[in-house]
Amino acid sequence: MKALKNYINGSWENSISTKYTFVHNPATQEIIAHVPHGPDTAKDVDKAVQYAQQAYLEWKDVPAMKRVQPLFKMKTLLENHMEEIAKLITTECGKTYTESLGEIQRAIENIEVACATYVLNQSEFSENIAPGIDEFMIRQPLGVCACITPFNFPGMIPFWFLPYAIATGNAFILKPSEKVPTTMQYVFDLIHKNIDLPKGLLSLVHGGKESVDALLQHPDIKAISFVGSTPIARYIYSEGAKYGKRVQAQGGAKNPIVIMPDADIEMTTKIITDSVYGCAGQRCLAASLIITVGDNKNIKDALVEAAKSRKVGYGLEDGIEMGPVISQESKTRIEGLIQKGIAEGANLLVDGTHKSVSGFTQGNFLHPTILENVPLNKEIISTEIFGPVMSLLNFKSMDDSIRFINSGRYGNMACIFTQDGLSARKFRSEAMAGNIGINVGVAAPVAQFPFSGWKESFFGDLHAQGRHGIEFYTQTKVVIERWPKTWSRTF
Amino acid sequence: MKALKNYINGSWENSISTKYTFVHNPATQEIIAHVPHGPDTAKDVDKAVQYAQQAYLEWKDVPAMKRVQPLFKMKTLLENHMEEIAKLITTECGKTYTESLGEIQRAIENIEVACATYVLNQSEFSENIAPGIDEFMIRQPLGVCACITPFNFPGMIPFWFLPYAIATGNAFILKPSEKVPTTMQYVFDLIHKNIDLPKGLLSLVHGGKESVDALLQHPDIKAISFVGSTPIARYIYSEGAKYGKRVQAQGGAKNPIVIMPDADIEMTTKIITDSVYGCAGQRCLAASLIITVGDNKNIKDALVEAAKSRKVGYGLEDGIEMGPVISQESKTRIEGLIQKGIAEGANLLVDGTHKSVSGFTQGNFLHPTILENVPLNKEIISTEIFGPVMSLLNFKSMDDSIRFINSGRYGNMACIFTQDGLSARKFRSEAMAGNIGINVGVAAPVAQFPFSGWKESFFGDLHAQGRHGIEFYTQTKVVIERWPKTWSRTF
Amino acid sequence: MKALKNYINGSWENSISTKYTFVHNPATQEIIAHVPHGPDTAKDVDKAVQYAQQAYLEWKDVPAMKRVQPLFKMKTLLENHMEEIAKLITTECGKTYTESLGEIQRAIENIEVACATYVLNQSEFSENIAPGIDEFMIRQPLGVCACITPFNFPGMIPFWFLPYAIATGNAFILKPSEKVPTTMQYVFDLIHKNIDLPKGLLSLVHGGKESVDALLQHPDIKAISFVGSTPIARYIYSEGAKYGKRVQAQGGAKNPIVIMPDADIEMTTKIITDSVYGCAGQRCLAASLIITVGDNKNIKDALVEAAKSRKVGYGLEDGIEMGPVISQESKTRIEGLIQKGIAEGANLLVDGTHKSVSGFTQGNFLHPTILENVPLNKEIISTEIFGPVMSLLNFKSMDDSIRFINSGRYGNMACIFTQDGLSARKFRSEAMAGNIGINVGVAAPVAQFPFSGWKESFFGDLHAQGRHGIEFYTQTKVVIERWPKTWSRTF
Amino acid sequence: MKALKNYINGSWENSISTKYTFVHNPATQEIIAHVPHGPDTAKDVDKAVQYAQQAYLEWKDVPAMKRVQPLFKMKTLLENHMEEIAKLITTECGKTYTESLGEIQRAIENIEVACATYVLNQSEFSENIAPGIDEFMIRQPLGVCACITPFNFPGMIPFWFLPYAIATGNAFILKPSEKVPTTMQYVFDLIHKNIDLPKGLLSLVHGGKESVDALLQHPDIKAISFVGSTPIARYIYSEGAKYGKRVQAQGGAKNPIVIMPDADIEMTTKIITDSVYGCAGQRCLAASLIITVGDNKNIKDALVEAAKSRKVGYGLEDGIEMGPVISQESKTRIEGLIQKGIAEGANLLVDGTHKSVSGFTQGNFLHPTILENVPLNKEIISTEIFGPVMSLLNFKSMDDSIRFINSGRYGNMACIFTQDGLSARKFRSEAMAGNIGINVGVAAPVAQFPFSGWKESFFGDLHAQGRHGIEFYTQTKVVIERWPKTWSRTF
Repeated sequence: MKALKNYINGSWENSISTKYTFVHNPATQEIIAHVPHGPDTAKDVDKAVQYAQQAYLEWKDVPAMKRVQPLFKMKTLLENHMEEIAKLITTECGKTYTESLGEIQRAIENIEVACATYVLNQSEFSENIAPGIDEFMIRQPLGVCACITPFNFPGMIPFWFLPYAIATGNAFILKPSEKVPTTMQYVFDLIHKNIDLPKGLLSLVHGGKESVDALLQHPDIKAISFVGSTPIARYIYSEGAKYGKRVQAQGGAKNPIVIMPDADIEMTTKIITDSVYGCAGQRCLAASLIITVGDNKNIKDALVEAAKSRKVGYGLEDGIEMGPVISQESKTRIEGLIQKGIAEGANLLVDGTHKSVSGFTQGNFLHPTILENVPLNKEIISTEIFGPVMSLLNFKSMDDSIRFINSGRYGNMACIFTQDGLSARKFRSEAMAGNIGINVGVAAPVAQFPFSGWKESFFGDLHAQGRHGIEFYTQTKVVIERWPKTWSRTF
Repeated sequence: MKALKNYINGSWENSISTKYTFVHNPATQEIIAHVPHGPDTAKDVDKAVQYAQQAYLEWKDVPAMKRVQPLFKMKTLLENHMEEIAKLITTECGKTYTESLGEIQRAIENIEVACATYVLNQSEFSENIAPGIDEFMIRQPLGVCACITPFNFPGMIPFWFLPYAIATGNAFILKPSEKVPTTMQYVFDLIHKNIDLPKGLLSLVHGGKESVDALLQHPDIKAISFVGSTPIARYIYSEGAKYGKRVQAQGGAKNPIVIMPDADIEMTTKIITDSVYGCAGQRCLAASLIITVGDNKNIKDALVEAAKSRKVGYGLEDGIEMGPVISQESKTRIEGLIQKGIAEGANLLVDGTHKSVSGFTQGNFLHPTILENVPLNKEIISTEIFGPVMSLLNFKSMDDSIRFINSGRYGNMACIFTQDGLSARKFRSEAMAGNIGINVGVAAPVAQFPFSGWKESFFGDLHAQGRHGIEFYTQTKVVIERWPKTWSRTF
Repeated sequence: MKALKNYINGSWENSISTKYTFVHNPATQEIIAHVPHGPDTAKDVDKAVQYAQQAYLEWKDVPAMKRVQPLFKMKTLLENHMEEIAKLITTECGKTYTESLGEIQRAIENIEVACATYVLNQSEFSENIAPGIDEFMIRQPLGVCACITPFNFPGMIPFWFLPYAIATGNAFILKPSEKVPTTMQYVFDLIHKNIDLPKGLLSLVHGGKESVDALLQHPDIKAISFVGSTPIARYIYSEGAKYGKRVQAQGGAKNPIVIMPDADIEMTTKIITDSVYGCAGQRCLAASLIITVGDNKNIKDALVEAAKSRKVGYGLEDGIEMGPVISQESKTRIEGLIQKGIAEGANLLVDGTHKSVSGFTQGNFLHPTILENVPLNKEIISTEIFGPVMSLLNFKSMDDSIRFINSGRYGNMACIFTQDGLSARKFRSEAMAGNIGINVGVAAPVAQFPFSGWKESFFGDLHAQGRHGIEFYTQTKVVIERWPKTWSRTF
Repeated sequence: MKALKNYINGSWENSISTKYTFVHNPATQEIIAHVPHGPDTAKDVDKAVQYAQQAYLEWKDVPAMKRVQPLFKMKTLLENHMEEIAKLITTECGKTYTESLGEIQRAIENIEVACATYVLNQSEFSENIAPGIDEFMIRQPLGVCACITPFNFPGMIPFWFLPYAIATGNAFILKPSEKVPTTMQYVFDLIHKNIDLPKGLLSLVHGGKESVDALLQHPDIKAISFVGSTPIARYIYSEGAKYGKRVQAQGGAKNPIVIMPDADIEMTTKIITDSVYGCAGQRCLAASLIITVGDNKNIKDALVEAAKSRKVGYGLEDGIEMGPVISQESKTRIEGLIQKGIAEGANLLVDGTHKSVSGFTQGNFLHPTILENVPLNKEIISTEIFGPVMSLLNFKSMDDSIRFINSGRYGNMACIFTQDGLSARKFRSEAMAGNIGINVGVAAPVAQFPFSGWKESFFGDLHAQGRHGIEFYTQTKVVIERWPKTWSRTF
């Protein structure tokens, strides 16, 4: 049983805290590791920041062209170790092996885009803004930046931030979720052993709320990136701002997909089912509100059939399409929300509760569930369930659907399935969400585009990924330069 | 005596509040206007937001090419009314007429850049991110945006925000400083009478802290822009974040200028004197820490002479180089800080206190003041005085100067005077401030560049002006579009 | 009868040539003006270049922010004189008054985009490409630039170039078509009387081939912009290159529109008819190959009906939908091509020849003509007719249509009418033309986008309009700046 | 003795031509290889184009994110084989091993920037240019593109083009200089063996003028990139244009460096000496006109001393600072030009002719040569010598120097050595050259900036490297998309 260490000043060391919690395999309840927690983890943060600050002071003066060289190597490194990393992800997080591989691919794509930093961080030069005066801008790093990541994408989400942060000249501290700390432990160790970076440039600190607060309050941390639930995202944004920091805080969602009558039933069903139940519904881009427009008999039948036949089990086994949810608490919470939905008036079209998985009876398994006709004026309609639960609704028109979507609290994603150019255009123009899919089930922007949550799905100005990453991790310096002609030196 | 009205829903109307405070001419104490204040002004805000929200819903769908047409007209309108506006500025704010004219010119330049919005708000399109899938980004407006502006640039600072906000499709609410509300009252009336805009798109609400809090808390206000002192900026950032809003909050400064031994004395003295005493030192880019490097006898003599000979008086009179400070309270505060500086050990090289201006004995006049050798380990060295007070320091080297500068709390501006390419480059690379001047006394970025405060001079990610303005006032929407080939319709 | 003058060195002067040709009103044959021609016009060019070069040397050092000020004025000027200019266009060029107004609007939009030059010509700065070394780019003007414009858009096409050329710091010489020289004569005179520009910055020289060759060969002309037919565009590109110049040369077209079976017949017919017969078919974006897919009876009937009922007449009269072609020669040429088409096997579905217009029997009028089933293996199918002639084709599938389109010589425009997202996407991705319309009849890019001809419709790298205009009229200068640390001066 | 093959359709094959010429080691006259030449090489071109066209049709539809993956591998591949490649370069081209290594580094940097293509080739999207209409741009590849490269940088110059061409979706044909064909033969074989690319995507064809003309005339080649002498560059530009192609043709130079009186003598001498004699003066950025301003005794002595002490010899031996020129013909030509310079009145300050290198008496060696006071009104002052010859001039002022520089035919590079900010700014603003160095001897832009020749040093619009590369190898397609609201389908 492995007691996890922190990575500080370029080496692995024990936490100052002597308290530890368990990391479980959600399919087996096997304890995978012990992870530090408790008030003393704040001291770990303090120590990490101190060395990170030193590393930043050295690193910021390294030309950007050199700073991206380790990223080119990191891309190859992750490509070469995809399988081991994917296994770790599945083991601690539960998703299927295929889902884990896909997650790493997304991480790599962010590294690729950050390799372009020495192009992307160029800024503007204007000759002669007034006679003899030039003006230009430089993007300089912020200092020490930290990110706090959730349990659902242990391999990808840190790389929404890390590559951009260091490519632009910052030092970077990661605090992974205490539920899934082993993936990044492994990845940081790969980096440690294979890639030459200044000591302290990358740090990994374990912990829970105490670490988070320590990061939020530390005066030498200049920027906080967060991904998690909306209440915590709001806390992070508010607290980070209180301490004068830059913050980008990504929260929850309740993502709608509209199915127009002209949508192909077979393909739509397949894509939507993957979207709803992928990662057991535990992703911020999981579809959860499936809205049919007009007559919906055929599509409903197909969705029910697909839900029922989805193969649930241990993510490392072949052919498994859906793994467990992250914890017993989570399972219980989801079951409670399903019951509440029913109590509020929804029809339980497919019941995924109380079904065990053979050979993994201890696992936190739920099966695909469909709640039909969830009442629009009660609570569940707007509650993020974060589990494999589809709410199936029916509206008369796309206009009604958009009106309903726009009345919601979240704005992470909205998708439409249609063959019709006008319907697609109207939807993408009017639906109030930052990531729009047209005949796409999971509208996750590729790495060169910002991951654009809206409304209560995001707090801040600049999102993760791409140019937004470059902008978030740099501060603009404008230089006005004048060499007065009358000062001509005589030679 | 004029009781100021609010501009709501396209017309001028009385505040719901029945309380009023006075607006004074700082050179004469003449009461210029009555301005609403008190708790009921929060109701004005509420009303303005309600109509603004309606205007936004209409305006957001107007093509950007059309939305900039009123800005082209606004540029001409301000050009044609420069003199009247400048007189109003001087009357309520005290600065010289020439300074007032310069301020309007800066406002106009921001309008010009915002005229380019339909070019600047284009965003990225990527064909074929995967076979048959395209991905692109749209910048859509936020909704209702508000700005809260300070007393020192009544004509310019609102235009750091207003043109960008409306050109990108938002509605906009201005709350001007209650000390200088008449300039914008006049400008809004010019716009009202000459430019066709949807009712409610632009609003002007008067008031003090109650209005500010109402703006911060209103759920339909999506973004807050602020310029003022650091404590308030921090409050605005923190409160705005608490309510989930975007915030850009510009604070105070204590701006250093380094004079290298090779700097031309005559020109340097002239430029620096203008920087320190321009607008009576009441600007966030006013130089206040003048740092000579090496032997400084000549430059010191020249600075003293320039301070003593600066012509102080009523800004509307010919030949006046410096007007009064904004209020009696402000004057008293500045005099107190000078005394405190002396008490802390500084040498009062030039004493600008207790000197009245003939014919304007009631005015809030101070004369240029120089404190020499302000102790580095006491308070005044880092206190923003916001008055015509130069702190004169001497260091042995540029390295020492940069070290001193970087130890400060603020990062609005840092300038150097030198003929030497290496000194200039080193300074602009290392000095931790967002606006750098090389042989320039007031490093105010032109409108296409962001006004880049650092450290405690700015809270947020995106600054005022230029592309930052466009980004701040829009949210990114990423669209992933797929038209599955297998859906081919048969015709 | 007006003998046109050249505008050289800021004043109107007679051509050195004593030879003149006539400018006719194509609807009446009335002689509108005499325009210089013959070998001696080459001397006019030489003179204009000499003064333009002087103006350039002065103008290039004016800050871009100042250089766009005359453009802001020019926008207002054209807006205020739209009616007079439109009348002149119709008088010399024949198109309807409404078409003339639309043309000026497009000119104004290019001026608006060029007003953004001081933003658009910013270029990149990279700090610290190697320790202590910075690298950045400047866009500097080329010198004297010339454009040679065709008869069909006398008011718009010069403004595809002029605003960008002067905003970026060049001097500019226009040689308008000798068939339509009076519009620009008037516009230049408006500018002359209302806008303050350095003498020689803008020049207007009249003439024919001799002027063109003089422009191509003059060593002080650095860039040539051309719009006209493909053979001349090829000549301009080849000759300009021979003399080492930058060239952008826009040629002819044979623009296809594909009508899918799901296209709305009424709207499609209206839009396509406007596209084919607008400006009497004399525009490089006129549709001429109308391709129906699948059964086409209904759309064919509608197109025939629309062609027959189009109101042909004098463009200044009310209700006229189509004016004459530019000249008797042109009319004769078009009639000949129609006959040739019939001889090659096409079916003359609607015959627009031999129909006079009452009251304008001398005018160069043709009526809408439709040739059906033009053989794909003969000549007319690929000949630009540049008159009001639709070639109506039918294919079995969109794939066949795209294959046919891509086999053609030209690539100016290709459009599709459909409701189907997939058809639209496939078409815009695969059709080899630079301007694609989806449910649009004339795919003319707005001014912020380049007017992107492909294949034999364009020769060069950088097109007219927008950022391409800025790039075409500037040359990049890369500066590598190093201030060696070891050179530190001792103070 | 190796007979070189062509790389066509993914395999190595013999030329159709049976004629061969020799490739020599310029230091030893050893014959390294036989290279095909003669009229039949045109048939090789034809064959290569045919397969390239097929490859392009497949490759263009591969997502850009995938198309850059081979480039990531290519970077690593070149890094891993730097030494072998460098030896080949030195062997066939003569430069020192260190110079050869540096050249490969520059090649790699261009690959890195091209790895960013999927970011750099994004283009603009504008929502709602008119109600319900969107407009956007796509950059699509051109087809088959070719480059013709010179003898002086066999390892670098092909990579100014190749990575950008294929990353943007084109097929690419390289015709290397027949004097140095073995480096690319080796590099292409590395790629062939290690990197998976569609057959025919990359081709290597050998030959001389007949191949060049075949490339220029082939209708399926859409773009030509060239680097060489000005007369040939002009021919390429003119011929390419005649055949309607895009062309970027880089020519010769006569690069000036101005030494101001305040320049540090030791460092300036070292840098300038490296610039003049690096690669034996055979590079388009070699300094050749060394202009001292004011009294020049000290710097002159230092330059003479540095020239005399430069270690000339075989580039593969340790400590060698300068290798031979490329051929006996070249050596003879250079000697002739030195004699002509003397005949025209120059003073031969250092004579590098008639000095053999021990052990390499057959080599094409010249030693550093300095001609002083070359007359300004004769020929040699403006003749590109392309050998290790410095022309040393003296002017009274920087203004005189700039005037002299700007009177020249070329505009590749201009540098200044000074400590003075004003001198540097004035020089970089006014000197008419596209690559400016400040205290830099070889102003070669890093890969993210265009290699910006001006005047007769470049023909075309878009240069090599960076964004210019992306633009040159793509054509813009503007899409105007409208989904008419009235077409709403009823469901």
